[in-house]
Amino acid sequence: MKQSELFIKTLKEIPKEAVALNHKLLIKAGYIDQLSSGVFTILDLGLKVIYKIENIVRKEMNNIGGIEILMPALIPRENWKETDRWDIDVILKTKSNYGKKEYGLGWTHEEVITPLVKKFIHSYKDLPKYIYQIQTKFRDEARPKSGLFRSREFIMKDLYSFHATEKDLNDYYETVKKAYFKIYGILGIGEMTYLTYASGGDFSKYSHEFQMVTPYGEDTIYICDKCSIAINAEIVEGKPTCPDCKNINLKEEKAIEVGNIFKLKNRFSKPFGVNFTDKDGNKKTSVMGCYGLGISRVMGAIAEVYNDKEGLRWPSSVAPYDIHMLQLDDDAKQESESVYKLLVKEGIDVLWDDRQETAGTKLKDADLIGIPIRLIVSSRTLSKKSVELKKRDEDKPIIVSKNMVVSEVKKML
Amino acid sequence: MKQSELFIKTLKEIPKEAVALNHKLLIKAGYIDQLSSGVFTILDLGLKVIYKIENIVRKEMNNIGGIEILMPALIPRENWKETDRWDIDVILKTKSNYGKKEYGLGWTHEEVITPLVKKFIHSYKDLPKYIYQIQTKFRDEARPKSGLFRSREFIMKDLYSFHATEKDLNDYYETVKKAYFKIYGILGIGEMTYLTYASGGDFSKYSHEFQMVTPYGEDTIYICDKCSIAINAEIVEGKPTCPDCKNINLKEEKAIEVGNIFKLKNRFSKPFGVNFTDKDGNKKTSVMGCYGLGISRVMGAIAEVYNDKEGLRWPSSVAPYDIHMLQLDDDAKQESESVYKLLVKEGIDVLWDDRQETAGTKLKDADLIGIPIRLIVSSRTLSKKSVELKKRDEDKPIIVSKNMVVSEVKKML
Repeated sequence: MKQSELFIKTLKEIPKEAVALNHKLLIKAGYIDQLSSGVFTILDLGLKVIYKIENIVRKEMNNIGGIEILMPALIPRENWKETDRWDIDVILKTKSNYGKKEYGLGWTHEEVITPLVKKFIHSYKDLPKYIYQIQTKFRDEARPKSGLFRSREFIMKDLYSFHATEKDLNDYYETVKKAYFKIYGILGIGEMTYLTYASGGDFSKYSHEFQMVTPYGEDTIYICDKCSIAINAEIVEGKPTCPDCKNINLKEEKAIEVGNIFKLKNRFSKPFGVNFTDKDGNKKTSVMGCYGLGISRVMGAIAEVYNDKEGLRWPSSVAPYDIHMLQLDDDAKQESESVYKLLVKEGIDVLWDDRQETAGTKLKDADLIGIPIRLIVSSRTLSKKSVELKKRDEDKPIIVSKNMVVSEVKKML
Repeated sequence: MKQSELFIKTLKEIPKEAVALNHKLLIKAGYIDQLSSGVFTILDLGLKVIYKIENIVRKEMNNIGGIEILMPALIPRENWKETDRWDIDVILKTKSNYGKKEYGLGWTHEEVITPLVKKFIHSYKDLPKYIYQIQTKFRDEARPKSGLFRSREFIMKDLYSFHATEKDLNDYYETVKKAYFKIYGILGIGEMTYLTYASGGDFSKYSHEFQMVTPYGEDTIYICDKCSIAINAEIVEGKPTCPDCKNINLKEEKAIEVGNIFKLKNRFSKPFGVNFTDKDGNKKTSVMGCYGLGISRVMGAIAEVYNDKEGLRWPSSVAPYDIHMLQLDDDAKQESESVYKLLVKEGIDVLWDDRQETAGTKLKDADLIGIPIRLIVSSRTLSKKSVELKKRDEDKPIIVSKNMVVSEVKKML
């Protein structure tokens, strides 16, 4: 892709309301645009990152038996009434001008998936079921802030599981935990993300959050280094203690929640009557789990930790392009084109900065945009029949002869 | 994919409110589920069709220079006020519980894309721009009906173009027309779809719709066979006449709109002030076009015309699977598995009916689901060391020896 053909441009000024690091960086580098407080447009570079995150998550959901569907955002009032959640204050509501139909915009989809699954489950043979979607959600945040961390509209993966027994739910819950850590590992945030005990609501003792440590996180967690788990300050009474090993030497950190999983048990399956006949012919109610992972929030989380004072530094798994080729002057145009074609032919996704801008601007923008590998082609490098390669997170470039560029890039990917 | 692992099941009963053919068939075959009037969940088989349509549309949009972004559904009241469209009755509105923020849920996105593009356009060198999204839209239909034809929540591709001159807009408008017909051709509805003159609103004499002829269409069009174009009855005054050749022998047909394109000129660029400096240093206002194509509506349209009394008959470009393999008895299990593996290895997407159901049920469901090729493996076919292949839209099966199955299937694809 030629950079001159991108829609986005990097910005010189950052809007005043951007305070959180991910918010500032993603806006300045042209990944997102703020339409209104907590409401964003994902721009072309940003959408490439979103699609990469979605595909990583989708693959792991499929690996644990997940089946993808797409539920609507317009959830009728009567469904929320069934579970006594119509009056929850995070629901944005809307009403048709025709008739009396009212809807709550989905911030979670138990009220849709549960009656839907009821239609397809009759016998224990129909269980378990693991159904997920990647979908746009709405949530009436009181103070939308922190960029993609807390917005009124966001993209989320939500998985729901239905089981014949609590044992089966418990087993699958552990399977999902593992899948989540695999995902965070691929996304590059595995090492700083902790399984965190959190409130279980009125139906379980605990739920679990996945909390990524960052100085600007909204939550406070206490980490037990022995167990590599944490506990959310919200549920701490008295001295923080590890729920697993009872260790009281816990480390306090700020963190941002990048996933949460709940054992819902029969909280929703009971009101909607998701019943089945077991092996012995007895009628039973299915038990449920739900498993959220915010796609756009995770994009913000990665941006929040992968950066330096010059800009973003995407992990290669989610970077919008594999390599950023800077053509520093007009004399390098022909050679840039030939290198570009060589790389593209090898399936490497290249952003080619072909703009009529100064070398200084191009270098600065490349650091801001944060693609993992920078390739410089200029009349100076070409005079030595070479190009310059540098990783975004390393200081020293290497000089590579032109005919070695593909093999060198492949080594760095 | 094993059919026993699908989420969906075909239904025996169709909900009463389903009247339109696409609505009945898509619900009965398990592609969609109706949550509420005009509000649907896309089930697993249906989502595969949606993704195929999206990718066909995305590819052609990219081919004509389109850049993909993703705009939000929550569009602030003040943006609609800017263009005097806040009071349009199709807008579903919502209001935050915190502060006074009001939003209209996007049924079209001029109010977002126009101020966004303004930020990135300063000089004639920044033009033209072609920006599109594939996104979930909301529309307060008075009487949501006809299944996916007219719903309150739907998936749409909307492209917006920004130009320095009307000539450039006119040229690109023709480019989009061609791209649309290419898309309809790939989707299998090209031959029954007509470029149709329709109302241009208050800013153009005409807009153009793409109307697919079907007996259950909501619109009436008059087709000129000489020009292969049509005119929407809505703009006919007196005797219907071809706007191109003045022919008055037009054919009246029912049709469903599967796309529409408008020359918006400066209707939106003016209020939002999308100005630029031209070559001579003069300040000018950009002119715009917009180009819609309903993804979920097109899925309904294809279902509406590709069917017979047994069920759906998807064109292969959008079918959820390439081939439906029916294993008719337990004795055929091992051979089914080996055929399945052979086909999958060749990159062929197979739905394998491995369910414990009668042959009659499997054959009936296969016709209802409508995958283009049916492959039968049974102890009877295996006794002749063969399998049976049949296209969904042909009557006679062919008997193929087991070791020829891959090459025969490839011929049929």
